Amino acid sequence: MTYCVALKVENGLVLTSDSRTNAGVDHIASFRKLHVLEVPGERVIFLQSAGNLATTQSVITLLQTTIRNAERHALNVPTMFDVAELVGKTIREVIKRDQGQSQGVDFSCSMLVSGQIKGEPHRLFNVYSQGNFIEAGEDTPYFQVGESKYGKPILDRIINFNTPLDRAMLCSLISMDSTLRSNLSVGMPLDLVCYHTGGMKNPGLIRLQEDDKMFHQVRLAWSEGIKELFDNLPLLTRDVCQPVEEA
Amino acid sequence: MTYCVALKVENGLVLTSDSRTNAGVDHIASFRKLHVLEVPGERVIFLQSAGNLATTQSVITLLQTTIRNAERHALNVPTMFDVAELVGKTIREVIKRDQGQSQGVDFSCSMLVSGQIKGEPHRLFNVYSQGNFIEAGEDTPYFQVGESKYGKPILDRIINFNTPLDRAMLCSLISMDSTLRSNLSVGMPLDLVCYHTGGMKNPGLIRLQEDDKMFHQVRLAWSEGIKELFDNLPLLTRDVCQPVEEA
Repeated sequence: MTYCVALKVENGLVLTSDSRTNAGVDHIASFRKLHVLEVPGERVIFLQSAGNLATTQSVITLLQTTIRNAERHALNVPTMFDVAELVGKTIREVIKRDQGQSQGVDFSCSMLVSGQIKGEPHRLFNVYSQGNFIEAGEDTPYFQVGESKYGKPILDRIINFNTPLDRAMLCSLISMDSTLRSNLSVGMPLDLVCYHTGGMKNPGLIRLQEDDKMFHQVRLAWSEGIKELFDNLPLLTRDVCQPVEEA
Repeated sequence: MTYCVALKVENGLVLTSDSRTNAGVDHIASFRKLHVLEVPGERVIFLQSAGNLATTQSVITLLQTTIRNAERHALNVPTMFDVAELVGKTIREVIKRDQGQSQGVDFSCSMLVSGQIKGEPHRLFNVYSQGNFIEAGEDTPYFQVGESKYGKPILDRIINFNTPLDRAMLCSLISMDSTLRSNLSVGMPLDLVCYHTGGMKNPGLIRLQEDDKMFHQVRLAWSEGIKELFDNLPLLTRDVCQPVEEA
């Protein structure tokens, strides 16, 4: 499996992806799931992928190839909406190509497409396996793909459109931590991007390895804080755990 | 959907179930998912169910009916293992009965079977739709069925076999809160049971309604505590959110 989360807040985008892939528990590998396309100064596009690795790798490669040999591609269409449409179209083509002899294999995937093209604000889309897509707005400022449920409660409690970028990054690391702890199919290293709106270029991917000191500190502070918070919660005001009297 | 969680700690059992069922978002209802069978002083058996409501209602009813008309039933088999086996057998029978004309319907269910029979410690089983089952031990002192992922991280962080019963109850309420917030298909009221080992009878189901003051206090204290904990987390030690310099 996979866990990718993308937050679109007022001042930019915060993207976090794990890198574990598995075809059964005895076939685990590490693959990058966060990719960047850019024309520095004019546009930057981030792609985060979950689902069938053969599908998502093909989609990414075809999107890159069309930049060289197609008339219309991710680096020349006028809006992020058009980019999302291109990604959806490519997903449909790849799945159609592969599913002829499906033999029960699930070829589906989903992709988070985000970034900014000059003349537009930064935008974030969730492109489904069917090629259709939705866009994040102020009311729902984040999308997740893959093993999304473990890490959702903390996002629901903390994130809104006005969260500052550095706090949004911290929250997405905690969301990732909760997922890593509860699901073995999500694993280190992590890839992070923090994009300030208006940057119009790749701000640089940050890779957090297993032994990363900063991430370790965040995990520890959160884990100990949660335990302390729990220990200091007041007792239940009604005694729901009264021992039954001996007969 | 549903969320049921059962914790087996040293001193007893803590069981929590929501009561929402849905067949599509416009067909939502409330049904009890926590049932008790007992011979006070000799045995008490708790059943928590998730999955197809027609299946689980049939299973519960058949288990109750066999008490009156079968030679071997939940209230006379010698061990909790035998009870789990009976539940598994009943699930298989019901699904076999219904799936003849499945028309794409999912008849599956899963059940948490817990309790105590004189001569044994308290035990907890997770019975699958196929009728097979596993038992909780000291290493994994809890099972969940239904929408389990949202509420798993807090259990993984807090619960172990030595957690006192009242703290285990508090933790399961927080696990339920995280699930209620993130998933509309899980809903109030909640049914709780706190069973002290050796009690050998139904300690009484506690029903928490939507307006329950105690649960509201727990939710509020946790929600505010999490926000405060997050706000007081130290800044990331590496600046991963540096703005890109203007060209």
